[in-house]
Amino acid sequence: MQTDTLFVSTCNYKKTNKMKKIGIIGGVGPASTVVYYNDLIQGYRKLTGDENYPQLFINSINMTEMLNYVGNNDRDGLTDFLLSEIEKLSVIGADYIAIASNTPHLVIDNLIEKSTVPMISIVEETCKYAKSKALKKVLLTGTLFTMKQNFYKKALEKYNIECILPDENEMNIIHNIIFPDLENGIVIEEDKVVLKALCNKIISEKHIDGIVLGCTELPLMLKDNDFSICVLDTMAIHIKSILGKMIEK
Amino acid sequence: MQTDTLFVSTCNYKKTNKMKKIGIIGGVGPASTVVYYNDLIQGYRKLTGDENYPQLFINSINMTEMLNYVGNNDRDGLTDFLLSEIEKLSVIGADYIAIASNTPHLVIDNLIEKSTVPMISIVEETCKYAKSKALKKVLLTGTLFTMKQNFYKKALEKYNIECILPDENEMNIIHNIIFPDLENGIVIEEDKVVLKALCNKIISEKHIDGIVLGCTELPLMLKDNDFSICVLDTMAIHIKSILGKMIEK
Repeated sequence: MQTDTLFVSTCNYKKTNKMKKIGIIGGVGPASTVVYYNDLIQGYRKLTGDENYPQLFINSINMTEMLNYVGNNDRDGLTDFLLSEIEKLSVIGADYIAIASNTPHLVIDNLIEKSTVPMISIVEETCKYAKSKALKKVLLTGTLFTMKQNFYKKALEKYNIECILPDENEMNIIHNIIFPDLENGIVIEEDKVVLKALCNKIISEKHIDGIVLGCTELPLMLKDNDFSICVLDTMAIHIKSILGKMIEK
Repeated sequence: MQTDTLFVSTCNYKKTNKMKKIGIIGGVGPASTVVYYNDLIQGYRKLTGDENYPQLFINSINMTEMLNYVGNNDRDGLTDFLLSEIEKLSVIGADYIAIASNTPHLVIDNLIEKSTVPMISIVEETCKYAKSKALKKVLLTGTLFTMKQNFYKKALEKYNIECILPDENEMNIIHNIIFPDLENGIVIEEDKVVLKALCNKIISEKHIDGIVLGCTELPLMLKDNDFSICVLDTMAIHIKSILGKMIEK
């Protein structure tokens, strides 16, 4: 192939103003940020047939700093911290913001109210998905913060879906499987066996019809075929919704 | 473990103002952007022993748009385009900018001159590394754009290192191995066999003492043990330099 032909073949860029730019608040943790990044870029290209790579912004924040606000139950501090990081993506041209993690969504109502740019909430998108599957009673799994705060419960109730939590001991087991290994992208097989058994026990005892993987790292460990009921992979649901916004007219 | 203990254990964040914030121009291509992201975050934590996750920004640009300027040999257009994307990372607080790709470095001198924030050049860092290894004559591999433009050659000559290029036909073979598969992170074994043989032939014929993997996707395919001479993995060299800047006092 001649050089000229090569130049032409790689230069078929046509400016399309239609694509919306997404700003991702990432780093919570880094492993799932990479999944969002890859899936949004590849998903956009597959969905549209467009050979362009969509522009997107990632503000990968300091997870420990964020968890400090969460751990101290400092909701105002958390809101202000996240708003200032969101604002950075807003000023450089993000049309929508998505936080690539469930835990920070405990202040999502405040963020939606105060952010100058629209947000795509993982909680809201998961609730809509659960409703579309006609679920009535779901089990919530995630970090201690996500399970103990009531932001998923409140949102699900708006859709008339009951939210069942693991008991105190079970919550600690789940949290300790997520931190620090799974959060760092490391899947330990023994942990998977424990987690799957624990969830299936609750599902059977409480007549659950859907399990919410309410932490963006949980799908690294738990898959659809680990359960006989509907699995709500919050990260996959979120990414699909974000893709929908990217290509909206 | 009690909930309170868990909260405390995840809340040992101490604010350190010392870390410099890096802004990455990514998406060229996405596969190597992910390597930069993971290696900078994990590298920082390993290097410092700090449990915090360093904040960093990624502006993942439209690769096709960028290649359009390159293919049209529109250096001014390319410079303006990259400067405007760099500026976005500057306004949100990046202390240093690194472009996670070799090809855009064909206008690095203009960018360094005009950018309001210091840049860490993959070309300059690679030259310094080559000098530290006392190399005299290196083979440059990369995209057609990187091989045909003289920015590596010029930079290497400043360090008294001769830069050998593949011939026209060989350049096309290398470029076609990079685009589109390797650029998308796909390593084809047959391509590796061809590329390794081609490089080793030039190395032997021209008495080369170092091979520059001048495309951030090439290290996905070529490794140290594929050659008997010094392999300059420009991406690894770049990432190490960026880490040095992140922790500078």
